[in-house]
Amino acid sequence: MTAKPDQMPDRPRPQGERIVISVDAMGGDAGPGVVIAGMAQSAKKNPDIGFILHGPEDTLKKLVARRRILAGCVSFRDAADVVTMEDKPSHVMRHGKSTSMWSTLTSVRDGEAHGAVSCGNTGALMALSILCLRRLPGISRPAIAVLWPSRNPQSFNVMLDVGADVRADAQDLLQYALMGASYARNGMNLPRPRIGLLNVGTEEHKGRPELKEAHGLIARFADQAHFDFVGFVEGRDIPGDVADVIVTDGFTGNVAIKTGEGTASLIGELLREAFRYSPLSRLASVLAITSLRRLQKRIDPSRVNGGVFLGLNGTVVKSHGGADATGVSSAIKLAFQLAQSGFSERLAARVASTAALAEDALTADPDAGKTNQNNEGGPKA
Amino acid sequence: MTAKPDQMPDRPRPQGERIVISVDAMGGDAGPGVVIAGMAQSAKKNPDIGFILHGPEDTLKKLVARRRILAGCVSFRDAADVVTMEDKPSHVMRHGKSTSMWSTLTSVRDGEAHGAVSCGNTGALMALSILCLRRLPGISRPAIAVLWPSRNPQSFNVMLDVGADVRADAQDLLQYALMGASYARNGMNLPRPRIGLLNVGTEEHKGRPELKEAHGLIARFADQAHFDFVGFVEGRDIPGDVADVIVTDGFTGNVAIKTGEGTASLIGELLREAFRYSPLSRLASVLAITSLRRLQKRIDPSRVNGGVFLGLNGTVVKSHGGADATGVSSAIKLAFQLAQSGFSERLAARVASTAALAEDALTADPDAGKTNQNNEGGPKA
Repeated sequence: MTAKPDQMPDRPRPQGERIVISVDAMGGDAGPGVVIAGMAQSAKKNPDIGFILHGPEDTLKKLVARRRILAGCVSFRDAADVVTMEDKPSHVMRHGKSTSMWSTLTSVRDGEAHGAVSCGNTGALMALSILCLRRLPGISRPAIAVLWPSRNPQSFNVMLDVGADVRADAQDLLQYALMGASYARNGMNLPRPRIGLLNVGTEEHKGRPELKEAHGLIARFADQAHFDFVGFVEGRDIPGDVADVIVTDGFTGNVAIKTGEGTASLIGELLREAFRYSPLSRLASVLAITSLRRLQKRIDPSRVNGGVFLGLNGTVVKSHGGADATGVSSAIKLAFQLAQSGFSERLAARVASTAALAEDALTADPDAGKTNQNNEGGPKA
Repeated sequence: MTAKPDQMPDRPRPQGERIVISVDAMGGDAGPGVVIAGMAQSAKKNPDIGFILHGPEDTLKKLVARRRILAGCVSFRDAADVVTMEDKPSHVMRHGKSTSMWSTLTSVRDGEAHGAVSCGNTGALMALSILCLRRLPGISRPAIAVLWPSRNPQSFNVMLDVGADVRADAQDLLQYALMGASYARNGMNLPRPRIGLLNVGTEEHKGRPELKEAHGLIARFADQAHFDFVGFVEGRDIPGDVADVIVTDGFTGNVAIKTGEGTASLIGELLREAFRYSPLSRLASVLAITSLRRLQKRIDPSRVNGGVFLGLNGTVVKSHGGADATGVSSAIKLAFQLAQSGFSERLAARVASTAALAEDALTADPDAGKTNQNNEGGPKA
């Protein structure tokens, strides 16, 4: 999930301010030990990071005490309850305020932390994030964005939504395009990202009605929002190089990333099998080990771990439920980098300026947006 | 796309009858030369095959004359026009009767051929197939089914729909389940295939309303139609081993297969790059060449080439537009195998018996279907 540091915008960290990440110790498949191991990895690589850790305080304090590197950079917030993977979002919204997940979000809401990380239940985390942090003005459906290994020079593409909401109308898809462009600009240092709208073909007559409508809307806002719209793209372009940001509804996006993960994992297994096949192929695997490790690093899901919730007042990174320590550390690094770049504030400014434009353009004169370019915010958001 | 011969049902070919495949020479990206090269490959492996070839007769005759193996097993039908990849299906339906694609389908409709193969425009081929061959009684939306490399013992899973129609309601998804089960039974010799319904999670409360409704419908028909329903599955299960048949709407299915193809192709490129990296890794690739070729064969898209159109009076196999000779030959082999197994007739019988059941169950008593098992057709369809 994390872009390499050299792909991040070259922007100084705010002077004298330690970046604090609020971490949900609970809710991942492997328990708090792995989360704390991930924090230790992050702290080792990055001495400027601080943590607020949420969960059963006594247990967590004992686990943290075993990691010398974490001494002095973790504070604790006791939370007795845990959101499980089986809990329904609607239930959690009513009864979830004693959980570590809710506590994790309140640290961001109250300004104690610059971003939040949780490995827990995605649906519940999104529901609680909306409840706790509130949507940005002008956003009706927040989205989850992931980075996806691609042929592009930056090695990754952004895709959203990958599962915040199973529905998206044309307006939502426009907002995803705006938020995705902002994320690509701040997270991957692309001044003018190329946006593609996912469909079953690249011809303009193909696909569902809301996609044809979204095609027109996104094209109209490309100039104001400083992105290039490449039109419809197909599933094969998600890891391709025709677009930097792939916009789709959360149902399709979720199926697509899981299909990609499943395909990569099957190929990996078959490759290992192929190398075990004969003495000659076993020898070959020894000779090629460095190259193969480099390849694995390039496509390892635990290194691209973390979906960012876009469209909220604050940064929330959802780590994979089955993440190992490296995966947790990647998610923390992403939250850190986004906090450091001031992404959340930039995105809010961008959405606010474009939402006003969109409203003008859509409610009054359909062409009004075209003459409104002076309202435009800075090109970095 | 093709199952291995040992995975096909062990059923004798009808005595004294040559299986004839109607082939569209035109409309593929590489022109008629590649199609004819594919036919030659098929004829070499399978002397019991005959062809009817459609397109500009003079040109085709010259190309076929160069392949000695095809002597005496090809007849020609002259067709002056070609459906291009850019033609809209609606246009082709009105003006397409002079095309090689239409001519190819008429040979199946008129009983001259046992199945049709075309590399052309998918939307146009589906539209003309519906017009020429007509839907099976009880089917409202025909579907395109593909085989997909998987962890299952049969090495492939069936997925449908992958793009015949961007919409599908609960009834359509039920029909896809029935047709997919029939295809898995006849194409992969699985007496009781396991059906999964694609969603964003396996919990029953997740997903779109039509999926929840389809979940109930498919579960209700599992026993009558001799399949096991494993409930909701996710993108990662498409190449997995929890289900043999993945049911979804044509929009999601199309994005999923193209994402899988794109991911596999990116990994293949990166792997070749990794092996070129150093003298040591180049030596390794030489030592591992046999194992790597075996792996490539297992996941090569041109060997799993061909979507089968289900729900029509006749077998139509859509080969990839960019297929090479091996790809065309795979598609022809699939059409041959399905014709040999009498799949089209079996599917028609199955759909007819279940459609009647479904109507009873849905219009009268919601529980009526459960007591109707005696109406059931043979377990092979």
